[in-house]
Amino acid sequence: MNQIYTSETINDMPQRYRANFINSLSGYKSANLIGTCNGSRHTNLAIVTSVFHVGANPPLMGMLMRPHTVTRDTLENIKEQGYFTINAVPVNLYAQAHQTSARYTPEQSEFDHCGFTSHWQDDFAAPFVAESPMAIGLRLETIQKIEANQTELVIGRIERVLLREQAVEEDGTIDISQLSLACVSGLDTYHQASGIAKMAYAKPDKAPTALKLFNTDQ
Amino acid sequence: MNQIYTSETINDMPQRYRANFINSLSGYKSANLIGTCNGSRHTNLAIVTSVFHVGANPPLMGMLMRPHTVTRDTLENIKEQGYFTINAVPVNLYAQAHQTSARYTPEQSEFDHCGFTSHWQDDFAAPFVAESPMAIGLRLETIQKIEANQTELVIGRIERVLLREQAVEEDGTIDISQLSLACVSGLDTYHQASGIAKMAYAKPDKAPTALKLFNTDQ
Repeated sequence: MNQIYTSETINDMPQRYRANFINSLSGYKSANLIGTCNGSRHTNLAIVTSVFHVGANPPLMGMLMRPHTVTRDTLENIKEQGYFTINAVPVNLYAQAHQTSARYTPEQSEFDHCGFTSHWQDDFAAPFVAESPMAIGLRLETIQKIEANQTELVIGRIERVLLREQAVEEDGTIDISQLSLACVSGLDTYHQASGIAKMAYAKPDKAPTALKLFNTDQ
Repeated sequence: MNQIYTSETINDMPQRYRANFINSLSGYKSANLIGTCNGSRHTNLAIVTSVFHVGANPPLMGMLMRPHTVTRDTLENIKEQGYFTINAVPVNLYAQAHQTSARYTPEQSEFDHCGFTSHWQDDFAAPFVAESPMAIGLRLETIQKIEANQTELVIGRIERVLLREQAVEEDGTIDISQLSLACVSGLDTYHQASGIAKMAYAKPDKAPTALKLFNTDQ
């Protein structure tokens, strides 16, 4: 290892520098746009990189939100309406997706200002992003305070999934490499990904085995 | 959209199929090996894809763990010792990293059986993975139960960061594209990533602007 950072080094970092450094440590994250609306169906859209899997049965997803940042409107809409959407960002729209992190006024919808189209599904109470190849509709399950730093963990139950491509494999896995999704590192760096391999269930007495190798030259 | 999945469709999926499907919805995730030991310094290593950023000040990272899966030893070691490491998986070692998900007995260390080298830092009470280009040493801060499905959210405070490359930018961001890290989707599919752009802080009255464009042909 070439560089070692101790608690002291980290504590001594200027605030913004430390935010960039620490945010980079979690590696590649999925880029998602959170779609919400208020009681008048006025829409809001915010990029969030803290979405994660919580459980498959019941089907739950979570995201961590800081109450005093730009996602405040998102959090208020979710609390008020009880519904939200998680829309995976396609690679070709990463710049517009990043633009939703600007501090627009509550009267301005990021859908209009950042070039996204709201898509309403008849009875579902939050807007989907029409441009997203993988969009999820969720009903709020709980909001739990993280004791360690008072951020809020929003957990939603998956009620609807919209997929653009026939990307579901025989075993239920979605081959997201077909969907050209962006991923993010740190606060502002966007990446594209390409598949390497789908691995077999690992067993102690068996060497690691690929079920499928992707063509990495594609 | 070509395919719509409703709550009913999802509920009707066979258990394993649903696990694969729901696990795919969170998109690209970072691939990390969690290094722990027991009181006799007997080591354990487990791949985890639920690591996420919790906060920069104090510097906190979290991961979600299911008590009854293969990561049970990891969780017990963390509770017992109060320390663990998060080691980013390099692309060339994705197959070995996946192999740590096999159900080895508590007497077998995944370091030995999957081909990783434990690296001890003098006074730090958990083993790092020598092969990882970005390794983080954490002290257990809290374990919080997720009410919605009784999984456990482990939150650690970052006490040490080991970086192989001089990859830290002027603003503190770690250019992880220099580290050749793997990412994961679903339960078993590995990907590599390549940088697109680092974006400027977004403002409502400014078009999205790249601070840096990566060479995508590299």
